[in-house]
Amino acid sequence: MTGGEFSLIDNFFASPAVTRADVSLGCGDDCALLDIPPGRQLAVTMDSLVAGRHFLPGTDPWRLGWKVLAVNLSDLAAMGAEPAWATLAVTLPGIDESWLGAFMEGFSTLARQHAVQLVGGDTTRGPMAFTLQAHGLVEPGRALLRSGARPGDALYVTGTLGGAGAALRQLLAGDEEVSDSLRRRLEQPEPRVGTGRSLAGIASACIDLSDGLAGDLQHVLDASGCGAMVELDRLPLMQETRAFMQRYDDWQLPITAGDDYELLFTVPPSREEALRAVLPALDCEVTRIGRIESDPGLRFVDETGIMRRPGHAWDHFADED
Amino acid sequence: MTGGEFSLIDNFFASPAVTRADVSLGCGDDCALLDIPPGRQLAVTMDSLVAGRHFLPGTDPWRLGWKVLAVNLSDLAAMGAEPAWATLAVTLPGIDESWLGAFMEGFSTLARQHAVQLVGGDTTRGPMAFTLQAHGLVEPGRALLRSGARPGDALYVTGTLGGAGAALRQLLAGDEEVSDSLRRRLEQPEPRVGTGRSLAGIASACIDLSDGLAGDLQHVLDASGCGAMVELDRLPLMQETRAFMQRYDDWQLPITAGDDYELLFTVPPSREEALRAVLPALDCEVTRIGRIESDPGLRFVDETGIMRRPGHAWDHFADED
Repeated sequence: MTGGEFSLIDNFFASPAVTRADVSLGCGDDCALLDIPPGRQLAVTMDSLVAGRHFLPGTDPWRLGWKVLAVNLSDLAAMGAEPAWATLAVTLPGIDESWLGAFMEGFSTLARQHAVQLVGGDTTRGPMAFTLQAHGLVEPGRALLRSGARPGDALYVTGTLGGAGAALRQLLAGDEEVSDSLRRRLEQPEPRVGTGRSLAGIASACIDLSDGLAGDLQHVLDASGCGAMVELDRLPLMQETRAFMQRYDDWQLPITAGDDYELLFTVPPSREEALRAVLPALDCEVTRIGRIESDPGLRFVDETGIMRRPGHAWDHFADED
Repeated sequence: MTGGEFSLIDNFFASPAVTRADVSLGCGDDCALLDIPPGRQLAVTMDSLVAGRHFLPGTDPWRLGWKVLAVNLSDLAAMGAEPAWATLAVTLPGIDESWLGAFMEGFSTLARQHAVQLVGGDTTRGPMAFTLQAHGLVEPGRALLRSGARPGDALYVTGTLGGAGAALRQLLAGDEEVSDSLRRRLEQPEPRVGTGRSLAGIASACIDLSDGLAGDLQHVLDASGCGAMVELDRLPLMQETRAFMQRYDDWQLPITAGDDYELLFTVPPSREEALRAVLPALDCEVTRIGRIESDPGLRFVDETGIMRRPGHAWDHFADED
């Protein structure tokens, strides 16, 4: 672990925005030393953001710093885990102090919101990319897996869908008029950490939506060995997303576009009452969008009841996307 | 965590070479779930290898897969920690099945040697780079820190120095005749895991040599608040490294060249006997090269007793290196 050994990001690594009592040793040695409380499992997840692949050149650095942490906290949320620590590998073509300062401030703002301490990492010169590992804690047996959905379970999502996709397509088309509320859906997603914690013990399965509803729901169905029906007219949409879909006649946007970082989860009938009980305390809206069925496959129906067939989910290694 | 979700590295992530009983959930969900045994701290470290920066284009993929894991296990060794789990972010410009197969086999060979289970990661298209996080376990209070060296402690290194640097310089000069034994020092370093474990409780400070003896020893001195004297004629060298140094009249090579991944450690006089007792069981040679002194600064003396002044350590963000 060599992050912070040299001058560039020394302060960022050496003086993290958050200091936790369970960090015996933070940045500055060969490893960090962390104390896991008794009765907790460690949940770990790692995601990379690569320039030109996961973010556009010229993306606001504050928001990029936020997003690098957010996409990983979203994975912890999808397990019902409580965030604790992060390590960060930063690869940059050169040094731009003001850019870096903004990046770090965005990162630190979200870290403070969720009490996440940066405990290590690495800095390298090269094509711009960031890899973050987030560490969380969860009570054994309470983690939300992809494999627990069963026929008859209701299917829910948090927040709204397709906003990040609508923003990305407008930006790629050179549209300067993208509203900031839409743009924030793409550049500054809110990880649903509090909601994920509340859903542990209630939801039967959960996943975060990084690659699009169709692809991510299929991961749940594959892991759980069942199928699902989604009602298109129930999908929660921002007004601007709806307007974008109408303008381009693109009904698939909230199904195939990635980067929403909302939670998709299933709830058995026996736990619907428990879900209703926690709803007022959740940090976001949740919407019932369909149900789990025993027939394999993923079915989308519109308001007339007609089946619609969506395209493919985002795949970083597909030829073009 | 999206590694293995798509076709490319599915098998690598889904069927790790090592399966450990303390992994409640491995690859394939939003997070891995890991059980920390009672009475152990978690040691974590993250290092990136970026093409053209940390390895030459055309590097043998089997050895590259080995090295990505080795450099991180070396950090665990430097803490005296026992390796347990790894996560791996892979960024590749495209898919080359035979290249990837060799990479994975090199990775898996070292993983098997140290019982390290791959529990997650990410795959992305982009300029070739690898970021690995290694997780290890260590008894509280027994981790080897950089900060424990005291005046009067003896200074030791494992293995030999400068071989990786000699190989790199020959390869950069277009020399096709580099011997494989020298080349392996650069491309397939042996993390000193067993020795690190044995030194816990004996060494007062420890660091692994990734950036060169001068730079890494200075990190120990900075953290410990003291100085050191190193006797140049005691530095352990391979015969080929010595020949290279003589040919180019480069006495600094074993001091300034990086990538050796040996352990540098200090031993108080009271624990010299304990060190002698474990020597026969160590997985490598150890050599006494100098001592810790109260005067700040780092002094190198040659066999005539004359002080020599070395150059600078490797710095990824220096203008050129």
